[in-house]
Amino acid sequence: MNLDHVLVSRDADFVTITMNRPQRRNALSLAHLRDLIEAFGAAGDSDAAGIILAGAGPVFSAGHDFADVAEADESAVRTLLDTCLQLMELIESVPQPVVARVHGLATAAGCQLVATCDLAVAADSAGFAAPGGKGGWFCHTPMVAIARNIGRKRAAELAYTGDTITAAQALEWGLVNRVVPAADLDAAVADLLGRATRGSRSSKALGKRTLYQQLSLPQAEAYRLATKVMAESSQSAAAREGMSAFLSKRQPKWSD
Amino acid sequence: MNLDHVLVSRDADFVTITMNRPQRRNALSLAHLRDLIEAFGAAGDSDAAGIILAGAGPVFSAGHDFADVAEADESAVRTLLDTCLQLMELIESVPQPVVARVHGLATAAGCQLVATCDLAVAADSAGFAAPGGKGGWFCHTPMVAIARNIGRKRAAELAYTGDTITAAQALEWGLVNRVVPAADLDAAVADLLGRATRGSRSSKALGKRTLYQQLSLPQAEAYRLATKVMAESSQSAAAREGMSAFLSKRQPKWSD
Amino acid sequence: MNLDHVLVSRDADFVTITMNRPQRRNALSLAHLRDLIEAFGAAGDSDAAGIILAGAGPVFSAGHDFADVAEADESAVRTLLDTCLQLMELIESVPQPVVARVHGLATAAGCQLVATCDLAVAADSAGFAAPGGKGGWFCHTPMVAIARNIGRKRAAELAYTGDTITAAQALEWGLVNRVVPAADLDAAVADLLGRATRGSRSSKALGKRTLYQQLSLPQAEAYRLATKVMAESSQSAAAREGMSAFLSKRQPKWSD
Repeated sequence: MNLDHVLVSRDADFVTITMNRPQRRNALSLAHLRDLIEAFGAAGDSDAAGIILAGAGPVFSAGHDFADVAEADESAVRTLLDTCLQLMELIESVPQPVVARVHGLATAAGCQLVATCDLAVAADSAGFAAPGGKGGWFCHTPMVAIARNIGRKRAAELAYTGDTITAAQALEWGLVNRVVPAADLDAAVADLLGRATRGSRSSKALGKRTLYQQLSLPQAEAYRLATKVMAESSQSAAAREGMSAFLSKRQPKWSD
Repeated sequence: MNLDHVLVSRDADFVTITMNRPQRRNALSLAHLRDLIEAFGAAGDSDAAGIILAGAGPVFSAGHDFADVAEADESAVRTLLDTCLQLMELIESVPQPVVARVHGLATAAGCQLVATCDLAVAADSAGFAAPGGKGGWFCHTPMVAIARNIGRKRAAELAYTGDTITAAQALEWGLVNRVVPAADLDAAVADLLGRATRGSRSSKALGKRTLYQQLSLPQAEAYRLATKVMAESSQSAAAREGMSAFLSKRQPKWSD
Repeated sequence: MNLDHVLVSRDADFVTITMNRPQRRNALSLAHLRDLIEAFGAAGDSDAAGIILAGAGPVFSAGHDFADVAEADESAVRTLLDTCLQLMELIESVPQPVVARVHGLATAAGCQLVATCDLAVAADSAGFAAPGGKGGWFCHTPMVAIARNIGRKRAAELAYTGDTITAAQALEWGLVNRVVPAADLDAAVADLLGRATRGSRSSKALGKRTLYQQLSLPQAEAYRLATKVMAESSQSAAAREGMSAFLSKRQPKWSD
């Protein structure tokens, strides 16, 4: 794959997608978003077990680039935001677990990326903000994802103040899963994603899809969906193999 | 009550329902689930003020038994899961507060039980997991309840990794209300349930029902429901007695 | 403004609305609620950048006054509760960020006020409770707001036990944003509200409205709304000014 703004590498079971516009603080221009969509689409279709989203240079991602938006009319901004949403929905819909590797600042749509990834590991040097609230263009769309990771008062604080919270604060609030010294970041990402990609991939993919579907439903409807999926999936090759291996005290072999 | 898999005891105001298949790690077979449903139904209809759900043996509950599922067709699994859901809905619909007394591992549907109980007290030796994610049969239905107790990133971590979290972690994430040394577990359960069962029982029962109803609604609809219930219940004997006692600085006497 | 139960003061950019029935523990009588609605309505329409809700005397607010309810019929209680809900909705709908300054006990509808304000700063002497659960009139309506700030198990514990939690506990659970020694309370409120009111006011007002709207929607619908608002608002004078100032590395000047 030959992309201008994104590096894609494959190491054993994992694909790493690296935002690579360090001179623009990995700002999410339309071209950058399209590259990310292409990279996530290809990784999602590949036989990789997990996906890592990383950023090159000092910043994870600064969100949209004001240089792209300042001169754009509403229709052009709408195209940018629709493309951004397409990326967010793609991250939630690829079958693999996606972990954000957050080494530096993640702001606005960059913070939304962290909130949207299934999992997130941060270096203690990372920071998180929705800075639109202290400017002239509020972070409306980032807050959809961010507020669904943290509580209401904390969402309001991030949104209105625009202040940057530390990695430790993000961990306490549930925006990230792990915080480690910067030197240990890759090891911690590999460890968490290794744990998150054990087992049958088809089962995990169905689990990811169902988890996000049911989370958007009232509890009774969520149970209706999950019960149906759980009963159907009990007949899958993966479920059969897992139960058979467990009962015979042998290691399972996953065919899918 | 004479049940094969469940012990039921009554001590003053509280009924304790103990899963008693220690040799099967209190796995939730169809027969076990039916016993639990019978026990909860009877406790719910009784004059007990509170209900404790406990497990005999080293494990709280390991969830469904693969020995029951491995050979079952979809229809049989569906019956098992529908019965499991019936138990979960019953725990939420009995009028009394239900506290999980978690002394050991609570996994899959066993962890779902903890998430479903109104309250939970854990020994520091307890652990919590949704292990399907690292196998072949994802914990779709347990995650409906578990994800409604903890945040999105934490739910994804539990669901995908299948790892066991400690009682301390469960406390921090809001899956349990208290963690104590194992030797203090019964005292802590009695203390919390004692606090949770003060006051009028009819008022508490209406409160429990309304709390779960409104939590599944958008805020504006939740307020519509809660305002109606709050106005109507102001005319109840319990409300009258509570206010009268408060205003006369005397102890209230609850007739219901 | 000449109100019987509420003090209103203006200090530079902020309006402080102080519940001033200390002899009744700032109980929310119908007249008190109407004064609060008048004060919030006026503050919302004013050019103030932020609003502080405070309480005079030892208690922040004890919620509804049993003396008002004990003799009232359902219709009168309904009027009281509808008026209370009108205040809660007004706090969420005024364009400015509203911070609760909680120096003492906040119970029942008083705790609901804290949960409803956008932000909250507490003195370490503050406490929070939904005491109806240990009496005869359950806190149905307060729990709509409180449960949307904290997790399910914690909501159930507050609701059923009626116990008072400390400010430190409220911070950990996400019910308040800051806890400070009582002597530092005003400085902490001013600091947080100062941060929360930076930037364009029209942009902030649109952000507040959209945040609460999208939080009540399933994620896909929330994104549809937020994307529309974000695209439209990109053409606003405030957004233009913010981006232009950023790109020219100058301080922005907000016209609205």
